[in-house]
Amino acid sequence: MHPIGQIRSPYKRSKDIPIQGIFNNEVEAWIELEQKYAAGLKDLEDFSHAILLYYFHQSHREDIEGQPFLEPDKHGIFAIRSPHRPNHIGLSIVKIEKVEANKLYFSQVDMLDGTPVLDIKPYVRYFDGRDNVRCGWLDKHFKDGNIPDRTVPK
Amino acid sequence: MHPIGQIRSPYKRSKDIPIQGIFNNEVEAWIELEQKYAAGLKDLEDFSHAILLYYFHQSHREDIEGQPFLEPDKHGIFAIRSPHRPNHIGLSIVKIEKVEANKLYFSQVDMLDGTPVLDIKPYVRYFDGRDNVRCGWLDKHFKDGNIPDRTVPK
Repeated sequence: MHPIGQIRSPYKRSKDIPIQGIFNNEVEAWIELEQKYAAGLKDLEDFSHAILLYYFHQSHREDIEGQPFLEPDKHGIFAIRSPHRPNHIGLSIVKIEKVEANKLYFSQVDMLDGTPVLDIKPYVRYFDGRDNVRCGWLDKHFKDGNIPDRTVPK
Repeated sequence: MHPIGQIRSPYKRSKDIPIQGIFNNEVEAWIELEQKYAAGLKDLEDFSHAILLYYFHQSHREDIEGQPFLEPDKHGIFAIRSPHRPNHIGLSIVKIEKVEANKLYFSQVDMLDGTPVLDIKPYVRYFDGRDNVRCGWLDKHFKDGNIPDRTVPK
């Protein structure tokens, strides 16, 4: 595994980041791909969203259970989205703004500046969308369209 | 990066696999996690779906552009889901059937038997679902609810 590029983001500290980018549409960031991968972005601009895989480079521990932002209860690491996980791979769905040469500009940002990028995939609703889903311990926080206070830092 | 477990799947050859697991609900598979990660599965069974990240261990090349299953046109590697991509990370949304000790049983399978697993994340529609999306070169194949012939091998 090797970084294919880097995220340039206005977020310099973990504590400023929303728990997921979808809860803060105003912020923009971009990926600066290594030049040799620039041609790999061809036709990506025809998609509205991308799946970014990146490396949680500021996490230096691997938990097996963890306590999420939204509640004090502990859950298995594979039932939460904590960075302190085996292999430290982060995943976010982002909104594509534009592609220019080796740069992919996007909104719905929840990554630190300098984050190493591992992969970019097109978000394909025919493959990646699911209806009638149960979301475990999270459902009570988002019940009836509620957006919990703690999704964006104060 | 290291495997946290392995996928046990009925698919022994790439050519038998549907292009995405969602198009074949009947098949079941399971992840056999390394014992030391078993506690990480706590509470995952309360979710209906999981995001699996795994290693395309049968791919030994990195393309910058590629031709997808569904059409002859070439696209940038980051606009298709080909395994022959930088870092060879695969991503699938699967339906959770049950969790037993260090085993996660699931359907909507599109991985080869023996595939090394890198991460398991809960699928959270509040973070991962998107409406009103454009899916580039794929939209014409899935227009008006069409499911293309080539999504499942004959």
